Amino acid sequence: MFVVIFRARVRQFDEEYSRAAARLRELALTEFGCLEFQAMTEGRDEIALSYWPSEENIRAWKSHPEHLQAQQLGRERWYESYSVQVAEVGRQYRSQ
Amino acid sequence: MFVVIFRARVRQFDEEYSRAAARLRELALTEFGCLEFQAMTEGRDEIALSYWPSEENIRAWKSHPEHLQAQQLGRERWYESYSVQVAEVGRQYRSQ
Repeated sequence: MFVVIFRARVRQFDEEYSRAAARLRELALTEFGCLEFQAMTEGRDEIALSYWPSEENIRAWKSHPEHLQAQQLGRERWYESYSVQVAEVGRQYRSQ
Repeated sequence: MFVVIFRARVRQFDEEYSRAAARLRELALTEFGCLEFQAMTEGRDEIALSYWPSEENIRAWKSHPEHLQAQQLGRERWYESYSVQVAEVGRQYRSQ
């Protein structure tokens, strides 16, 4: 399993951001095989974690036209800066 | 580079939690070779990401007595549930 770690410093969010964020999450989960999606904002910092069965799924999601457009708006409008890391999950444990 | 992804559902935080969280972060960064540490809370959800040069560093940090004590308090007092994932970062990019 792979995780995409998106971390950003927010510049400003607008209505289009909310629409795009909801839509990309939906696309990821329903069309591109995303296993889980969790996003969180605290002050001006955002973290979004998405989990995927393979890197192929991630590549397909990343190059979807709506995602490409969101990436451009992200750079131009919503975020001061952001980073994306793709990592392979080796082990995990849980306490419940 | 490895990342430890800690995700939790908070039960309640107390003063001891703040002390332990600050202390563990300091220990990670100054004694155990942690490269970066970012934690965030939104409502009752917490995410903490820490970055490490190797799994050996992570194992050493995880088994430090103060960390073991915090893990126990976490299970008993602070968290309803949590999960820990260790993942190897394959590629990353950044927009600034």
